[in-house]
Amino acid sequence: MPTTARLTLVLLSVFAVAAGAAPPAAAERRPYRSSQQILEASPASHWRMLDPDRTLYLELASGRVVIELAPQFAPEHVANITTLAREHFWDGTSIYRAQDNFVVQFGDADGEDPAKAKPLGTARTHLPAEFHRSAKGLDFQKIPDSDGWAPQVGFVDGFPAARDGAHGKAWLAHCYGTLGAGRNNADDSSIGAELYVTIGQSPRQLDDNITVVGRVVKGMELLSTIRRGPDPMGFYPDPALRTPIRSIRLASELPVAERTPLELLRTDSQTFRDVAESKRNRVDDFYKRPAGHIDLCNVPLPVRTPTAG
Amino acid sequence: MPTTARLTLVLLSVFAVAAGAAPPAAAERRPYRSSQQILEASPASHWRMLDPDRTLYLELASGRVVIELAPQFAPEHVANITTLAREHFWDGTSIYRAQDNFVVQFGDADGEDPAKAKPLGTARTHLPAEFHRSAKGLDFQKIPDSDGWAPQVGFVDGFPAARDGAHGKAWLAHCYGTLGAGRNNADDSSIGAELYVTIGQSPRQLDDNITVVGRVVKGMELLSTIRRGPDPMGFYPDPALRTPIRSIRLASELPVAERTPLELLRTDSQTFRDVAESKRNRVDDFYKRPAGHIDLCNVPLPVRTPTAG
Repeated sequence: MPTTARLTLVLLSVFAVAAGAAPPAAAERRPYRSSQQILEASPASHWRMLDPDRTLYLELASGRVVIELAPQFAPEHVANITTLAREHFWDGTSIYRAQDNFVVQFGDADGEDPAKAKPLGTARTHLPAEFHRSAKGLDFQKIPDSDGWAPQVGFVDGFPAARDGAHGKAWLAHCYGTLGAGRNNADDSSIGAELYVTIGQSPRQLDDNITVVGRVVKGMELLSTIRRGPDPMGFYPDPALRTPIRSIRLASELPVAERTPLELLRTDSQTFRDVAESKRNRVDDFYKRPAGHIDLCNVPLPVRTPTAG
Repeated sequence: MPTTARLTLVLLSVFAVAAGAAPPAAAERRPYRSSQQILEASPASHWRMLDPDRTLYLELASGRVVIELAPQFAPEHVANITTLAREHFWDGTSIYRAQDNFVVQFGDADGEDPAKAKPLGTARTHLPAEFHRSAKGLDFQKIPDSDGWAPQVGFVDGFPAARDGAHGKAWLAHCYGTLGAGRNNADDSSIGAELYVTIGQSPRQLDDNITVVGRVVKGMELLSTIRRGPDPMGFYPDPALRTPIRSIRLASELPVAERTPLELLRTDSQTFRDVAESKRNRVDDFYKRPAGHIDLCNVPLPVRTPTAG
């Protein structure tokens, strides 16, 4: 990695460097722009505000983790999670598992023990598995890059996703920051009360094997730095080592002044495609060999705080 | 994610489950074994001891990080790193950068400032770039899985690697835990004094763009949980937030009693291939759809403490 001074220089450089590797196609023969330059030049219409009705705030002593839910892929789970949040189910629960290079998991650590489990209120206690959905009606923005895990990969409404055209189905991919619903062995054993977030190399083997309900859009560093549990699978022998959860709230339940305003780059925008291309084929003073490829989980999903007014 | 009790059950299960997805080829038609079962049945000859002459101990207040060096790919850098370790160059330096989902970087935070930089002792101050090497003479164990970043991927002496047969070259891949030599824009601007370890989604775009010198084999959780730097690229505005490095030593310089004995599964062993296959096509009570694929950076690289005697 370059040192501070030099890489800052690269990031701020306004001069495009002539192409390095294979000659670009005619349509692409234009000066290289860094992601930062592309984002700075992006029109406001390429961004969207987070919908407060599908945004969760996970509140820890260290700060707030902002999560976007994906009802278009897991409507039953997201509805149940919304109920659990409204009824303050998670307040006083904990992050009770942290397995390095895999997941942090949170909810009621005693949820499996009928004698100790926290009541679920009016939430449903059984849901269908929502591992995938019909690909019909989805605005799936395919990326051109090959993927070993799925026939096609791309983005839907800001979420990394995969599609199997032959079977007409689509599902959300496990990338860094993916939020999933923990389950036992039965495919329909998750209800959204127990959740996990991926914190390492993308565990794509979980794709279409578990119900994905959303992703973290801000605050990942609060989860990724949690002390790992020393027991197998990252559990803690001592409950005092767990990370307390102060609360999980739907953003729309908080007064506007207490919300975290965030804009996300629309994954159906030209700016998004340009950013992905700027990472796929880097032409700058640092990179000597553009990769000519980007993996689904390496595509950046830019988030910003909207400017006032 | 399954809860404790249930997944433990899956891991310990001694009963093989009949195949789920596509029918296996005749040669593979044998009872499924979990990775744990495969490892438990492995012969001692499929394991190797870490070579203390190419092992570094990075000592932090939180514990020891064990690193295996890769002189077969970066001989000049590894020789220089060995010199720097012998001369205690890193003692009292720090981890001065932690960027979420990317890298931690360490060494002399003032290394770029000639007025403040720590003397390099007898280490060399200029080295050639060692981004890749000739593929000739390498025992490259190719995996059958497709990869978007390189024509072929696999393992060499325990390291995830890539190969380009057309150009006769090979290089080490950036997976979780890869150790690289920080550089400035010039390809030959690294000398191994400034190092980084990848702590998130594999940044394969760095492959063959920077000199990889080794990988962490134990203690990743001490690096991955370091508080992220709030400044751009994960730097800290306040030097007090950096993580002090007590020392970096070559294992062979410590008395045997102070070393961390470790065995690594040989990546040229049948056990290793069997473990990869057990992850590529999982057949157990939890997984409903075997992936039929594994990415290079998802293949486990088992490490164990040798049993006494």
